[in-house]
Amino acid sequence: MKNPPDLNTIIQAANRIKSFVHRTPVLSSEKINEIAGANLVFKCENFQKAGAFKSRGAVNAVFSLPEREIVKGVCTHSSGNHAAALSRAAKLRNAGAYIVMPENSSKVKIAAVKNYGGIITFCEPTLASRESTLEKIKTQTCAIEIHPYNNYNIIAGQATATLELIEDAGPLDMIIAPVGGGGLLSGTSLATYYLSPGTRVVAAEPSGADDAYRSYYCKQLFPSTNPKTIADGLLTSLGSLTYPIILDHVHRIITVSEEGIISAMRLIWERMKIIIEPSSAVPFAAILENKADFSGKKIGIILSGGNIDLDKIPWIK
Amino acid sequence: MKNPPDLNTIIQAANRIKSFVHRTPVLSSEKINEIAGANLVFKCENFQKAGAFKSRGAVNAVFSLPEREIVKGVCTHSSGNHAAALSRAAKLRNAGAYIVMPENSSKVKIAAVKNYGGIITFCEPTLASRESTLEKIKTQTCAIEIHPYNNYNIIAGQATATLELIEDAGPLDMIIAPVGGGGLLSGTSLATYYLSPGTRVVAAEPSGADDAYRSYYCKQLFPSTNPKTIADGLLTSLGSLTYPIILDHVHRIITVSEEGIISAMRLIWERMKIIIEPSSAVPFAAILENKADFSGKKIGIILSGGNIDLDKIPWIK
Repeated sequence: MKNPPDLNTIIQAANRIKSFVHRTPVLSSEKINEIAGANLVFKCENFQKAGAFKSRGAVNAVFSLPEREIVKGVCTHSSGNHAAALSRAAKLRNAGAYIVMPENSSKVKIAAVKNYGGIITFCEPTLASRESTLEKIKTQTCAIEIHPYNNYNIIAGQATATLELIEDAGPLDMIIAPVGGGGLLSGTSLATYYLSPGTRVVAAEPSGADDAYRSYYCKQLFPSTNPKTIADGLLTSLGSLTYPIILDHVHRIITVSEEGIISAMRLIWERMKIIIEPSSAVPFAAILENKADFSGKKIGIILSGGNIDLDKIPWIK
Repeated sequence: MKNPPDLNTIIQAANRIKSFVHRTPVLSSEKINEIAGANLVFKCENFQKAGAFKSRGAVNAVFSLPEREIVKGVCTHSSGNHAAALSRAAKLRNAGAYIVMPENSSKVKIAAVKNYGGIITFCEPTLASRESTLEKIKTQTCAIEIHPYNNYNIIAGQATATLELIEDAGPLDMIIAPVGGGGLLSGTSLATYYLSPGTRVVAAEPSGADDAYRSYYCKQLFPSTNPKTIADGLLTSLGSLTYPIILDHVHRIITVSEEGIISAMRLIWERMKIIIEPSSAVPFAAILENKADFSGKKIGIILSGGNIDLDKIPWIK
């Protein structure tokens, strides 16, 4: 695919993946609305297959490959949800998934990749080591690289969450998604632009990993350097494909504090009785830290995932 | 009501409460089914108003009272979910709720009662003090006592969860509910008997609070003495109204270990990404500790509630 996904491409992605991913529910909570002073609807990708929206893009990318390519398998470097989602998607097509993971990846995430049959190669926890190790794997296996976000098939897959949200929730004043590498955000902003052009798209980012914020407002692509945040899904830099889409179709980026992320996450656990990972709490934190801007609006929030090590609850020391 | 609720009474209860409680979802998980070796469907009362099935019985009891009685308010002694549910139900009818709570009740539960406008009187943490304090309150206020479970309107209300489960899940081999005072279990067993008589009703109880187990198999009502379990919703004794229904309509009671409860609870958090309280995990623990008895069956499980102090996660020391 040479151009950003158009509406037809996103609809094709939705049809391609629908037997392999959940149509996740859209939930709301009176108590949460009282606290926020707004009407919030949550698209619950924490209930998605493999526990995150990443399954959408991974399935779309894997099932878009022609037979002659998929037989060699797929590969990526990832320490997180994309690794598990890609392993699962490859398994569904009876193909191998070669995953390069930093040696300090969490046990929970290593177990998830193994559980879906991913073949792991460990590397040092630096971008240079991840990339050089992946190059070696590609040479050895001829597997097709599926980048976690800088890939139009991935972006089209992630966009399908917003397509469902708009179908299920009706007219929205705003949609808020978290931003890391921008796969979810660029898909969200494209789907919104095509299907509900009057809806504003807002991105939420930890202030300790604010490369998207700086890149967006300075109109210059900054990489993420030494990011520090509990939202471990949002450490990556924007990509050459996601950045221009975000510049064109996102209306605002808000940064939030670490305390704000933890307290938003706890409120969602407590009031909605659902488990979300810290990255998922970033949009709700953005609302709570800027209440006046959202007062009385109907707002769709993408809860990106629910994969968290239950031995490490951030408010328990 | 002088006799145990018949089918018509349960259907009337369902109609009476439906504008005031959630029709909670029925969820399932492939991973959980793999672990259990059975086909499990979970009725998610952790998503219920006030966080537990108790809202069903409380609303039914409060809305069954004639105007001349409700004007005086309602009262109960409870340290748990019934206290919050009754406060909420009374508020919906613009009536007062007088709640006697032991002075050592958890902050979370005290806050929930206050949040719904309940008027709290604290007492010593003994049954004698709870009962004598409640008698005083009744004399002072003329409020109507709504017992947490030994009340046919409460039982009919709790039965509506099973009515919905059977409608939504289709034919079931078994239904499993936790048992404390027996309000949920007696309602579950009656609704199953009327609507799906071929379905076996199983109760699950912590072995550290096994009064229902002993009472059921010895055919003699034993009180709960010094119960010790993390499942704080299941500490109470069976009542004179719940016990005979359970004897007639429950097919088996299984006791489970504390470790089993904690590990079942963690599995549900981890795999289903939903928050349940320890009492809710007792039925799933019963399956995991007796896998052969449930192998390949389609089983409905009532997840009774999701109210847990998030500062005290049982597997984190």
